[in-house]
Amino acid sequence: MTQSNNLLLVRAARGERTERTPVWLMRQAGRYLREYQALRQQYGFMEICRQPELAARVSLLPWQAFEPDGVVMFSDIMFPLSGMNIEFSLEDGGPKVAQPVRTLADTQRICELPQLDDCVVCVQQLIQHLKTELAGRAAVIGFAGAPFTLATYLVEGQKSQELEIIKRLMYTQPEVLKALLQKLTDSLITYCQAQADAGADVLQLFDTWAGMLSTPDYERWALPYQQQVFSALKNKLPTLLFVRAATGYLELLKLSGAGCISLDWRIEIPKARAILGADFPVQGNLDPAVLLGDIKHVEAETKRLIAAGGHRGHILNLGHGLLPSTPRENVQRFIEISKTHTV
Amino acid sequence: MTQSNNLLLVRAARGERTERTPVWLMRQAGRYLREYQALRQQYGFMEICRQPELAARVSLLPWQAFEPDGVVMFSDIMFPLSGMNIEFSLEDGGPKVAQPVRTLADTQRICELPQLDDCVVCVQQLIQHLKTELAGRAAVIGFAGAPFTLATYLVEGQKSQELEIIKRLMYTQPEVLKALLQKLTDSLITYCQAQADAGADVLQLFDTWAGMLSTPDYERWALPYQQQVFSALKNKLPTLLFVRAATGYLELLKLSGAGCISLDWRIEIPKARAILGADFPVQGNLDPAVLLGDIKHVEAETKRLIAAGGHRGHILNLGHGLLPSTPRENVQRFIEISKTHTV
Repeated sequence: MTQSNNLLLVRAARGERTERTPVWLMRQAGRYLREYQALRQQYGFMEICRQPELAARVSLLPWQAFEPDGVVMFSDIMFPLSGMNIEFSLEDGGPKVAQPVRTLADTQRICELPQLDDCVVCVQQLIQHLKTELAGRAAVIGFAGAPFTLATYLVEGQKSQELEIIKRLMYTQPEVLKALLQKLTDSLITYCQAQADAGADVLQLFDTWAGMLSTPDYERWALPYQQQVFSALKNKLPTLLFVRAATGYLELLKLSGAGCISLDWRIEIPKARAILGADFPVQGNLDPAVLLGDIKHVEAETKRLIAAGGHRGHILNLGHGLLPSTPRENVQRFIEISKTHTV
Repeated sequence: MTQSNNLLLVRAARGERTERTPVWLMRQAGRYLREYQALRQQYGFMEICRQPELAARVSLLPWQAFEPDGVVMFSDIMFPLSGMNIEFSLEDGGPKVAQPVRTLADTQRICELPQLDDCVVCVQQLIQHLKTELAGRAAVIGFAGAPFTLATYLVEGQKSQELEIIKRLMYTQPEVLKALLQKLTDSLITYCQAQADAGADVLQLFDTWAGMLSTPDYERWALPYQQQVFSALKNKLPTLLFVRAATGYLELLKLSGAGCISLDWRIEIPKARAILGADFPVQGNLDPAVLLGDIKHVEAETKRLIAAGGHRGHILNLGHGLLPSTPRENVQRFIEISKTHTV
């Protein structure tokens, strides 16, 4: 592969017309891969995150298998919290936080992420490893959880479907949530800038759970903190924002300052662009469950998506993370189709 | 109260301008009420559903407490399945189906709901009790689960967040899902028509989980079956449709033939009407979690919603079901505000 292929994903993230539609998959290095399952017999999830060489090896598994246009660093959105005096564990059902944050005193226990914290150094080394290994053949994708989404885990103490605890906090003690979100924002700026400085080609912010908010709550509790993060990255690298189930206020996602919006699967690309602007860069948005099914249906839907993106400012991806039970051959076909469909 | 007040909710469901905005709450008879909790010490959930007098007593608890404009029958969307040779139980985590439906043979085990099945007779008696008790002071609201949403429980075997099993079925054995959905549709038509014939003033169809589908999948697996149900009710009573998280394709909800769309909380009413039509009747859509919080915030948001609805074709409600931990006084205030805000 050549240097220009290398940057295909970056060019699409900037809204350029591309000779073919670049592709990667959220959660592409994970449980659906035998090689990953084998490594997890030896190492815990956080053990992998804490060892840059090992994390690089895991990040590169999908590259070795399928050569997608982007290699996302293997980590977890909770990782930077380890430098903020927050104790948590990662289990199969999602993160568990030892002492949930629900009072001002709780927020004061949290410290701002130091610039040379172990987790910052670790993520920088991981990105440097990936840059060296890939040598321009694919984009290195950094990422972070957005303030609101990280706050949901910190306040709820675990993954929650309805977010009752954080919403109650929002409506009864807004000052507590504000203090928490600002501490997270300041730390995330450090964490994201470090990724950019280490050479990440693009960075995706995951505000997965912000799509559980009403429009006024999104405007108050998600948007301003996203804006601070994207503003701090403005001249550093192209950025992407993913929010799940935010099809009721897509125009607010654009206001975040993200350069590209990663779409949930529940809106068609042309309709999203009618809201975001005809030229606005988008990523997505195959229903991850399509990859569980028949390969002919995978092919048909993938081709339909590529056509909808029009080979312009479109990064082919899923509308949410890859499901663990996905057959490997369907991932392979999804990527192959993007590679063979040229303008 | 007078006969005209009685019909306020029906008039709003038909799109009329109303002197004030009628109100009820999805799941208004339930765990947040002490009286309900006390009854549940004595009776199981399904025991209540199976006894029309007892179910009427539970349905009327919120009426006795707050006098909303609509009294929804106390039942469960799974209830008609008891007449279709499907064995299930209702637990705190949602329904559990004894033998999930995943093959053509499984669909053949299911029988069409007989017109005089016990559950049909029971739901008719329940509605008749409510009509008698309320004597025109509030609308009697019937309901049913839509075919796709009922199929999610039947195929998954329980509540599922990602719907992996039914989606895999959809993409690998579409003929199985088609057979199941058509059997459900035929039975639901019987079940819904029976409610109308018994005197229900309006009927709401819950296709809660259809909002997990992409646009083409919604068009194929949810919409045609909703259309059959609404078509069979067309000349019988005003109808409402609720789908959670369907803000990416609201225009398809209108195509169902439902007379009124019950909106999720994640879209503003004026924006929804820009899609549905300026005069289209809508219901909703306060985030149920708002009722967990400060009463001043409840008041402000309720007033904002009423103003957004413009006292025309608007039924005030939540954007999803009432949360069990909701304080009673917040429910009371929500209803009071709608009663005191006249044009």
